[in-house]
Amino acid sequence: MNEYVFRKEGFSSSREELLLNETLFHNANGYLGVRSNFEEGYDGQPSIRGEYVNAFYDITDMPQAELLFGFPTSKQTMVNTCDTQTIRLTVGNERFSLFEGTVLSFARELDMKAGTTRRLIRWQSPAGNIIGLRITRMASLTHPALFTIEYALTSENYSGPICLETVHRGDVLNYSNPDDPRVGDSTERMMLTDRAFWKDGCGVLTAHTSRSQLTLTSMTRDLLSATCETAYDTEAECLTARHQMKVGAGETVTLTRYTVLCDSRRYASTEEDAAAEMAKVTAQPLEKLYQEQQAYLEKFWEQSSLEIEGDDQLQLSVRFSLYQLLQSAGRDRCSNIAAKGLSGEGYEGHYFWDTEMYELPFFALTNREQAKNLLSYRYQILPKARAHAKIFGHKKGALFAWRTITGEECSGYYPSGSAQYHLNGDIAFAVVNYYLLTGDLDFMAEKGAEILFETARLWIDLGCWANGSFHLNCVTGPDEYTCCVNDNYYTNAGAKYNLYWAAKMWELLGEAGKLEDVAKRLELTESEIEEFKKAEAGMTLLYDEKTGINPQDDAFLQKPVWDFAGTPAENHPLLLHYHPLCLNRFQVCKQADTVLAHFVHEDYQSEETMRRSYDWYEKITTHDSSLSACIFGIMAARLGDMDKSVRYFSESSMLDITNAHHNTGDGIHTANMGGTYMGVVYGFAGLRVKEDGLTFRPQLPQGWKSYRFRFLYQDSLLELSVDRTGAAIKLVSGTPKSVRIWDKTVVAE
Amino acid sequence: MNEYVFRKEGFSSSREELLLNETLFHNANGYLGVRSNFEEGYDGQPSIRGEYVNAFYDITDMPQAELLFGFPTSKQTMVNTCDTQTIRLTVGNERFSLFEGTVLSFARELDMKAGTTRRLIRWQSPAGNIIGLRITRMASLTHPALFTIEYALTSENYSGPICLETVHRGDVLNYSNPDDPRVGDSTERMMLTDRAFWKDGCGVLTAHTSRSQLTLTSMTRDLLSATCETAYDTEAECLTARHQMKVGAGETVTLTRYTVLCDSRRYASTEEDAAAEMAKVTAQPLEKLYQEQQAYLEKFWEQSSLEIEGDDQLQLSVRFSLYQLLQSAGRDRCSNIAAKGLSGEGYEGHYFWDTEMYELPFFALTNREQAKNLLSYRYQILPKARAHAKIFGHKKGALFAWRTITGEECSGYYPSGSAQYHLNGDIAFAVVNYYLLTGDLDFMAEKGAEILFETARLWIDLGCWANGSFHLNCVTGPDEYTCCVNDNYYTNAGAKYNLYWAAKMWELLGEAGKLEDVAKRLELTESEIEEFKKAEAGMTLLYDEKTGINPQDDAFLQKPVWDFAGTPAENHPLLLHYHPLCLNRFQVCKQADTVLAHFVHEDYQSEETMRRSYDWYEKITTHDSSLSACIFGIMAARLGDMDKSVRYFSESSMLDITNAHHNTGDGIHTANMGGTYMGVVYGFAGLRVKEDGLTFRPQLPQGWKSYRFRFLYQDSLLELSVDRTGAAIKLVSGTPKSVRIWDKTVVAE
Repeated sequence: MNEYVFRKEGFSSSREELLLNETLFHNANGYLGVRSNFEEGYDGQPSIRGEYVNAFYDITDMPQAELLFGFPTSKQTMVNTCDTQTIRLTVGNERFSLFEGTVLSFARELDMKAGTTRRLIRWQSPAGNIIGLRITRMASLTHPALFTIEYALTSENYSGPICLETVHRGDVLNYSNPDDPRVGDSTERMMLTDRAFWKDGCGVLTAHTSRSQLTLTSMTRDLLSATCETAYDTEAECLTARHQMKVGAGETVTLTRYTVLCDSRRYASTEEDAAAEMAKVTAQPLEKLYQEQQAYLEKFWEQSSLEIEGDDQLQLSVRFSLYQLLQSAGRDRCSNIAAKGLSGEGYEGHYFWDTEMYELPFFALTNREQAKNLLSYRYQILPKARAHAKIFGHKKGALFAWRTITGEECSGYYPSGSAQYHLNGDIAFAVVNYYLLTGDLDFMAEKGAEILFETARLWIDLGCWANGSFHLNCVTGPDEYTCCVNDNYYTNAGAKYNLYWAAKMWELLGEAGKLEDVAKRLELTESEIEEFKKAEAGMTLLYDEKTGINPQDDAFLQKPVWDFAGTPAENHPLLLHYHPLCLNRFQVCKQADTVLAHFVHEDYQSEETMRRSYDWYEKITTHDSSLSACIFGIMAARLGDMDKSVRYFSESSMLDITNAHHNTGDGIHTANMGGTYMGVVYGFAGLRVKEDGLTFRPQLPQGWKSYRFRFLYQDSLLELSVDRTGAAIKLVSGTPKSVRIWDKTVVAE
Repeated sequence: MNEYVFRKEGFSSSREELLLNETLFHNANGYLGVRSNFEEGYDGQPSIRGEYVNAFYDITDMPQAELLFGFPTSKQTMVNTCDTQTIRLTVGNERFSLFEGTVLSFARELDMKAGTTRRLIRWQSPAGNIIGLRITRMASLTHPALFTIEYALTSENYSGPICLETVHRGDVLNYSNPDDPRVGDSTERMMLTDRAFWKDGCGVLTAHTSRSQLTLTSMTRDLLSATCETAYDTEAECLTARHQMKVGAGETVTLTRYTVLCDSRRYASTEEDAAAEMAKVTAQPLEKLYQEQQAYLEKFWEQSSLEIEGDDQLQLSVRFSLYQLLQSAGRDRCSNIAAKGLSGEGYEGHYFWDTEMYELPFFALTNREQAKNLLSYRYQILPKARAHAKIFGHKKGALFAWRTITGEECSGYYPSGSAQYHLNGDIAFAVVNYYLLTGDLDFMAEKGAEILFETARLWIDLGCWANGSFHLNCVTGPDEYTCCVNDNYYTNAGAKYNLYWAAKMWELLGEAGKLEDVAKRLELTESEIEEFKKAEAGMTLLYDEKTGINPQDDAFLQKPVWDFAGTPAENHPLLLHYHPLCLNRFQVCKQADTVLAHFVHEDYQSEETMRRSYDWYEKITTHDSSLSACIFGIMAARLGDMDKSVRYFSESSMLDITNAHHNTGDGIHTANMGGTYMGVVYGFAGLRVKEDGLTFRPQLPQGWKSYRFRFLYQDSLLELSVDRTGAAIKLVSGTPKSVRIWDKTVVAE
């Protein structure tokens, strides 16, 4: 078993399996993503055929049943841009099809060192001709606009004519399912073709989005290893090339199909830029591009090395997770990490809090440029967040939109959308976490502090004083099964941290002489900072004497516990079977909420309170969200229950591979990929990034021989390794650093 | 001044005034309603041209921005059925128009004894011809399907040909305003014409609704007082008659236009029934119909007599209110009283809690058949209410839909819709109130008790025990500026009353031997009744020691008070200018909530608590709802502040006449009409209907000489009169009855 290759063998035509594999084997590079659709295409077979560009969206309607003040009536939707994947093979007069003839063997592979996926097929046609196919796909990590398909066919026993027909279409639609609130429901054309033509052997199709007026040029080029006769066909929205050739038994013919996608958000002149890009990438052999890809990944795996000895399956699933994070993360300022990365249309390509709380920890520890870029995206949309705050009646501060591409709110139902003010705290947390790991005060002065100050201001505007405490009313915590509550523990803890760090950053920048600019820009004064401090100190963090736990909100414990025993298995996930008002009335959690707060802000409570709370919430949490199991795993480790931690970790690390939530077909659960990384680093190794440095509480899961991972800290690359003998920290590069391991300070040198 | 005539003089072409008068002078009879549109019609002038039939609806889409479980995606909308009002007058070659020539005089009248409206015009054409018009309209109270227009024109100085063109159209639309959540937004055709033809001098147009598949036949007939030549024209959806005749100076010509509307919800064969109805009503002179109308109203005014001496304006506005209640109330089992009666399309013809809490008190005291009919409507939709409860996860009981025609929920935003569970308590309250006034145990056994039991069951299913008290979580009280809260005082008080009376009714029916049938039907047993009693006794009624008031909900007092001083006048009503989540965060009330509970359930609190609460809530209530001022007026009287009571009463009784809310153009505020009645009877006279009988606390507003009103109580008609010397109760008919006046028991004999 190659520990960098995720492989699935055998061909299943079940709907679930077909869609799942389209997702699992998708190719993406942060800019573009192509689902692993079958090149040959099948009418009437389940498939979500899609090619996406991160942050490339159209505006779609979001009609409100009752249009109250401030309700959005349109949203952004990531567009299915075009279809350049189609390659139809005809052997003699037989069209290759997995649903005809005999599939002698079939496998799909994701090679995470090569940065490619492969489909390997041996097929016997109804007439008895045996053909081998080895189809390699790549979304280039070094040429973001490039996607390639290397279609290699080997005739085992057939000699005669074959035809490879490639198709490049503009008349594509987004996937829609009006019955599932988690995917889009628009059946309208979003991409309208402006022109489609052949030029210099390249198919060029330029289209614009129907309402957002963005443009995208898709360009294709086919290169063949054998002489062939090619007929080009041009329709209004469809470019077809028919490559006719002869093949002898035992011979291999290879078609390499290059796709370049250039959109108007990144490229000034999409057609010219696409042509230049195409010229560049086809000027070198494909092998060269593969080598570049491999080199890029070699560095990636080195920098984010996380090795597990003793459980190959988990090792693989961890690698799979890190690879998906890499594939998903936008690398320019208009893009971020969508809930499904670039692997599908679930949640319409929107960015959520997932980025800050689940994915940024990985990047902050392994790839600073990427982390900075993700934070810069938030800085970029800060003006939109200020406008969003105004809609909610706030006189100052910024409130980030719950789900968005451009910064405007795309959630149509505010109780589990905009009301999740904790997003503000999450973003602030990520800024602070980046600062604590890097000490990058320049970035703070330029962007980070402004985010901290504006979010802190919002808490002040939102909150109120009552009975000597500072309260945050009518917000929704991460647990969407309980909406619009008062003093949600997670939200308040996040706000407290945010306020603390806004005041602290004021001080730090002041000391460093870097404050003036941002303070002037925001007209921020010492007296506001004093308000921050006062609210921070007075922030309500609910504690219930009777149970000894932190209640999720001020009314949570007054509610009866959900009747789990009486809930039929088919009624999960609950949100698809119960009215939100019904769920609101019970102690039932969709996901980690207070438990997540205990992970992120462990110093706000005693271990005993955290333990009692954990036990309480574990019983009433359905984990209907994919953001939950990983957190329960991390906290189980924190509280010393390694068996439980490993169980949660296995569950979360295998979530997509096993299609545990039955909706991976709509795309990967990217946050959970980050959760898997955190499961090792924050769970088993017990890392916490605090003001006074890094703390580890390393433990070794039973059955594992050892594990180790590398991470960046200040100017150094460190490696923590854990085995039966204990934990050790090593300096890989940079200057010596001291960290705490359990209660000891250890110097990596 | 005729104290039964509401008159407005002068012609204003302002948009607000035009729409307002269309509403104020509409004609309705509980079955049909016709807005007081100008017969002549004006393209491009503001008008909502409408003819409605109570409970005649189509299904319209209600798309949800995010479709969560149980959210309705369609609703019922009262249909604008057709247009039979158009009468165009041409004098010589000049078309009569208020916007051309000179309006020499103009007045509109509503004659509440005659049961007609009149438009009186003297008009000089551009050529100098002077024409007098006296247009009398009537929605017949004795022939519900009939609407008449008597169009009398007098030529003062013109001799020559005139033409009266009447039009009967099927191609009408509903009014829509996508920017105002209080009116509909559908721009689709709801009425589709099946056929339009002339038969026996009648224009017949049969149409069906596009989705609800209801049918309506509108039939018109024109009768003229002078010989004329008539040309009939038939288009697909439009029937036109052109009556040509000669008129001499000083002569009067009268066109009487009959409209009969028969719908398939009430008539088995709409065309035949309309023809029969038309034959019947045109077989007698119009005068005869006027006499019938007058006789009907004579009885109405006698039965519901409410006389004020000393303030003619208020007397008139009270009459206006009672008349509107009469016009609005459906008299068959498929209809009820819409929020705007039959005067406009605001709230789409839906029935709300307005009926039970604001309008039924009037009918229960003055017209039992009508009261019974309104309660029977709720009984009729009880199966739908059971289904609605299931959507919200309730295992038993019934939950009435917040706004509806057929019983299915038409509110698209549940926080201020279905979450208003207090509707259940309101309906139960109305049932009990009817019982207390009538002693009608047979109706209870047949229908009333079933409503009480099923609503009581719902409270049990909804509620939960915590800390020894029974709590109702996540509901919205009448104050829609604070949604989805716990232990809303009004809701809990209503639930307590409901539970009490469910248990009591069980007992009463048992004693009367009338229990078995309903108990069996509902599989209701003593043990459930015990549960009712326990929950009733344990019901949380919040009281705050510090302020000495009843908090509106468990978190209300923790919130800061709304910044009223800082709110610009143009930002009212707040719901049109602030996000609901923003409003939720403050102590700000759209309307009476706890104060209403104190009115309805005064025995649950001490007078001092009610007084302190009143003072508290008065400061933070915007009265953005028209259901508010009347209640504050009633409670002011209850607490002894007669000046304030009179101020609120004046405001509420003049609300539509003065267009105080600037939206009377969309229809009258029917609930407020009932509130005006209650302002006298429950406010100044201080009536409370309790288990142990009637209590009055009569007071005389300053400046009034006296007032008196009649009301039904058990088998008697009584009259209470109040003047400076005190209050007296008189038996008008029936057997002697004793009531309490202040602390004395008085016998009316």
